[in-house]
Parts: sequence; C-alpha cells; structure tokens
Amino acid sequence: MNEDPYLDPIEELITTYNELNSSVIEELHEEPSPLEFMRFVAKNTPFVVRGGAASWKATQTWSPRFLAEHLGQEPVNVAVTPLGNADSPTLHEDGETLVFAKPWEEQQPFTDFLNYVIQQENDPSSLSQDAEVRYAQTQNDNLRDEYASLFSHVQPDIPFARIALQKPPEAINLWIGNWRSVTALHKDNYENIYVQILGQKHFVLLPPLCHPCVNERNLPPAHYKRTPDDNLKLEHEHGEADDDIPFATWDPDTPENSTTPYSKLARPVRVTLNPGDMLYLPALWYHKVSQSCLPEEGICVAVNYWYDMDFTGPLYPFSSFVRSVYKDK
Amino acid sequence: MNEDPYLDPIEELITTYNELNSSVIEELHEEPSPLEFMRFVAKNTPFVVRGGAASWKATQTWSPRFLAEHLGQEPVNVAVTPLGNADSPTLHEDGETLVFAKPWEEQQPFTDFLNYVIQQENDPSSLSQDAEVRYAQTQNDNLRDEYASLFSHVQPDIPFARIALQKPPEAINLWIGNWRSVTALHKDNYENIYVQILGQKHFVLLPPLCHPCVNERNLPPAHYKRTPDDNLKLEHEHGEADDDIPFATWDPDTPENSTTPYSKLARPVRVTLNPGDMLYLPALWYHKVSQSCLPEEGICVAVNYWYDMDFTGPLYPFSSFVRSVYKDK
Ligand SMILES: O=C(O)CCC(=O)C(=O)O
Ligand SMILES: O=C(O)CCC(=O)C(=O)O
Repeated sequence: MNEDPYLDPIEELITTYNELNSSVIEELHEEPSPLEFMRFVAKNTPFVVRGGAASWKATQTWSPRFLAEHLGQEPVNVAVTPLGNADSPTLHEDGETLVFAKPWEEQQPFTDFLNYVIQQENDPSSLSQDAEVRYAQTQNDNLRDEYASLFSHVQPDIPFARIALQKPPEAINLWIGNWRSVTALHKDNYENIYVQILGQKHFVLLPPLCHPCVNERNLPPAHYKRTPDDNLKLEHEHGEADDDIPFATWDPDTPENSTTPYSKLARPVRVTLNPGDMLYLPALWYHKVSQSCLPEEGICVAVNYWYDMDFTGPLYPFSSFVRSVYKDK
Repeated sequence: MNEDPYLDPIEELITTYNELNSSVIEELHEEPSPLEFMRFVAKNTPFVVRGGAASWKATQTWSPRFLAEHLGQEPVNVAVTPLGNADSPTLHEDGETLVFAKPWEEQQPFTDFLNYVIQQENDPSSLSQDAEVRYAQTQNDNLRDEYASLFSHVQPDIPFARIALQKPPEAINLWIGNWRSVTALHKDNYENIYVQILGQKHFVLLPPLCHPCVNERNLPPAHYKRTPDDNLKLEHEHGEADDDIPFATWDPDTPENSTTPYSKLARPVRVTLNPGDMLYLPALWYHKVSQSCLPEEGICVAVNYWYDMDFTGPLYPFSSFVRSVYKDK
C-alpha cells in the first residue's frame, strides 16, 4: 500500500484502490445465492454470470421476426438522435458549447422502428449518410408498461437480488437498438442486473471513487427536435444555470481527450455480454455501453433490473466526499 | 441531504452520514443468518444480539469461583498499569509529553490475579490508594492458548460470521478485569463479534469516517516497568520518530477536551452489553470500552472473535482517503 506522505490524497485514493482490486471482472457460471450476491454488494464490486439467463424464454425465443409478430404495429417510444448520442455530452452547432443532448422522443409503430434499426445495421448504404439513429431506451419500467406483453418471457425479478436486497425491482427496462447507439459514461443510484438477450453489449466500468478521473462538468441541457423538413435540430433549454446537468465528459475509449490530472489513473473494467449473460453493475459505478449485432439479427436487445440502492452505510457519503474534495481543489 | 456548495467537504461528509444513519444501534433478539449478517457488513453498521450467547456453557456456568477452581494456580499473562490505562494516551511524568502507554506485562498465578481484581472492585479500601490495576487482555488468541482449557465452553467460532465472511476467526480473546480498566478509543482492521459473559461492557462507537473528530496524534511509545521497590514507572522507548503510534486523543466522554474542529459533529453510538449479549463491531469503527461488575462477582469477563477484514472494495481506500484529506488541511 502506498504510504508516501506527500502523495496527493486523491491520487493515493485511486492508486490504493487499484492495488487492492482487480480490473478483471469476476466470472461466475451460475447465479449466486443471495449471500454470495450480498458479498459482492458489500464490496461494491461487479461480476458477470456467463449464461445466467440462458434458459429464459426471452433468450430462447426472441428474434427480430418473433418480436415483429408479437408486437406488430403497436406504438412504442423511440429515442431519435442524429448520431446515436441520446443523453450524451454533445458539441452544440455553435461549435463551442458542450451540452447535454436529450433525444427527440416519438411514438412509432413497433415494426417500423424495428425494420429501420435492422436496415441501418445491415444495409446502411440504403439510407442517407446522415440518417437518424433510433433506440428504444426509455428507462421508465417499459417492460412492465409498453412492452408488458413480453414481460412473462423474462423473470419477474432476479431472485438472488430481491432476497438479498429485500425489495422488488424499482424498474425493469427493455433496450432495443443497433451499433450506432452508444450510452455515454454515467452513473445511477441503482444496483443494476443487466441481462443480454440478442447481440452483444460492451461495458466499460469505473468505480465510484474514479469521479476525479471522469471530468464531470455542468452541461446546459438541450434536446433534439424534429423539424418540419424532417431534420433533427439541437435546441437549448432556456433555463437557469441551476438546470445544468453535472455529467462525465472524459471517455475511457478516447483517454487523451477531455482529461483531468487523474484520468490516467483510471483502470477501467471491460466486459462484453453475450446472449444469456447477466452483469451485476454496482450502485454508483460509472458505465459506458456500446453494442454489436449479429448480421442475421441486426438488432441488439437487453433487459435490466434496477434496485434502489441503500443510502445508509458509508458508500454514498464517501462517494459524495470524493466529489466535494475534488471540487474544492 | 446537505447540498450547500460552500460547506467544508469533511463537515459535509460527517453530516451527510449522520443524516442517513441512526446513532441508535439496531437490536436483534436472535442470531442473524449469514445473509442477514452480510447486510450489516455491507453497510458497515453495528448491531447487538440481546441474549445471542445466553445458552453458551460459559454464560451459564462461569463465575469467579468456577474460574478459580478451573484454572487454579496456572500462570496467566496480566497487563499491569497504575490507572487502568493499558494502551492509552497518557501524560508522561514530565507533565508535558503525551505518550502511548503500554502496560507492564507479567505472569501471575490465575487465582492471585483473580482475587486481586475482585478485591479491588469490591473492597478498594483494603488496598492502598494508588494500587495498581490488573487486566487480562492479551489480544493474542489467548482463549485458544493460555486459556485453552476454557475454550470448549464457548463456540469455536461464530457460525453466521464464518459462513458469511468465508473464514475462521483470526483470534479469539478472553478479557478479565474490573471497572478500573478502560480501553481507550481506537480502531482495528477486524470484523469483531464481542460476547459478554460476566458483568457489563459499555461501548462508545464511532464510524470510520469520524477520523477527523478523534484528533489522532503521533504518540511516542512508552511502557510501564515494575521497579525494584514495586512501583510502576513509565519509560520512553527510545526509538525513531517513525516508531510513533498514531492514536486518537479525543475522548467522546470528555468531549470538550483535545478537540478538533470536527469533534462536535460526532454522534457516538452507545451500547451496554449484559451477560449473553453479542455485539457486531464493524471493521475500522472507533471504539472505547469501559466495564461494570456485579457486586457478587467483582469481575467482568468477555470473549471476542476477530475476523480479518476485507481490504477489497471501497471501504479501506475511502477510510484512508478521509485520513489523508484531513492531514492535508
Ligand atoms: O444498455 C445501454 O445502452 C445502457 C444501459 C445503462 O445505462 C443501464 O443499464 O443503467
Ligand atoms: O473489552 C475491551 O476492553 C476492549 C475490547 C476491544 O478493544 C476489542 O474487542 O477490539
């Protein structure tokens, strides 16, 4: 352990953590018991269960054709962006202001949405170069709401998590998109169990104490709007500075850009989920998520379970403390 | 939660923790399952099990007479101090230097030790005013060593802790003393299960993030030595400054003395253990311990189980971080 008394406290924090923790994720091959799960929660450390959801009906039966037949022309909420950058730090057209870009949201008949996503993935030249990107990603418990007819194909909760955490999931979300959509590095106040159904998701993970690495900045919120001539225009939300959204602007995949003096200390944990794999993403961990589709499918589908985190104990106060010490520097 | 951006980060840390956590300890009335225990470990939060060890043979059968008959004149290690201040910050005779006072240790026949402790508790006027204080408190796994003949009267480990933590206890310690011995506020790198057998122990507890409250200072080590004329003399250990022992000097029972600007923010958790009670004292928590004896017994006896703490996860790096931010100020 690093005992150099002249080391900067934040540098010491991150290097001590790195010395004591592996940046290679632990792999299980069957679901943990509630007790085994709780040991990971206790150390706020991710793991992946390879094939943990392999026998779910969703994993066994969902395909683009199955979903199209099942949902037909039902209207679904779709996030539309020019670059697959929903909820991402984005340079405004003025070329100067970095804003937090919210997607344009609209209802589309499911099969129209699905066919578009597949066409863009598998036959991009059939679309114009700057064709929009669509992602079903509402994060509002949509699998028990607009996609409720599919809900019986997945588990109603994750038993090991429900028993260990003593609560039902707060939200169960379905995600459908293609490689063009990337979810920018961010964190949530949830214990997250993320289950891959079709295609792959690639997670880049950083523990909460890496806050000083991610160059959080207060970004003015903006949202895309579909114009009458069918373009997407990024519009500022004219609010107070108070409405600014604190958001990570460092990207571990382009580590030379938008750095802080601490970014180089980050040791991201990387894991790719295949169909049937299950990831435990601990509360307050930063995660960036990208995706790959199989050519015969052309879509990437996943389901995740959010359990409210426990705000008692030291994790939340300690994480906020790192943030305020960093801000204070 | 406190969102004042101008609050000092350390002040914000402690007040946020206080807002989210109770300073009244949780009371159980039967032993937790390994999973229930792990939930407390996960939030690094103490609890007490009233009567958790009520049926142990030790709780049921130990008494001063029983122990005297059982151990007879066997030699045992005894910590001897003038004031019951083994391992405590103590003002040196020069009246200026605060030192870390280690006890004089010697072997005594068990019944001599026991009778002395009881006499001092129950009939102090029969001893001289400045009579020494004796405490069996070696903390070196003594219940599996010098007191091994008593070991079968207690549980060989704490099943819920062994199963949850996946390890046997590193040390099992027996403590025998009277009200004159007080263990000064300190912390250990152990998950601690503390079981009361005779008399009472009074714990004052502070979470690891209270480091800035406890006024840790680097104290030169000193030890008591028995002089030829049977007095106890405190001798400096002449070593390097490197040998100084970082130790809490603030005492939550005299909160006006030896303060830091943060001491007033501390919200100590207080709990008294009665015979058969079991305390979970989480790793890195500060604890001060005093004791009371029943008049018909005149001794206070307890047993504790130390399990190595887990250095992975954020607790250890975060706790060290608080320390270095405080030192840096
Ligand atoms: O799958 C994604 O694109 C992002 C997932 C995510 O951010 C989450 O599960 O919290
Ligand atoms: O019982 C005592 O005097 C002190 C106990 C203690 O410090 C411990 O169990 O770690």
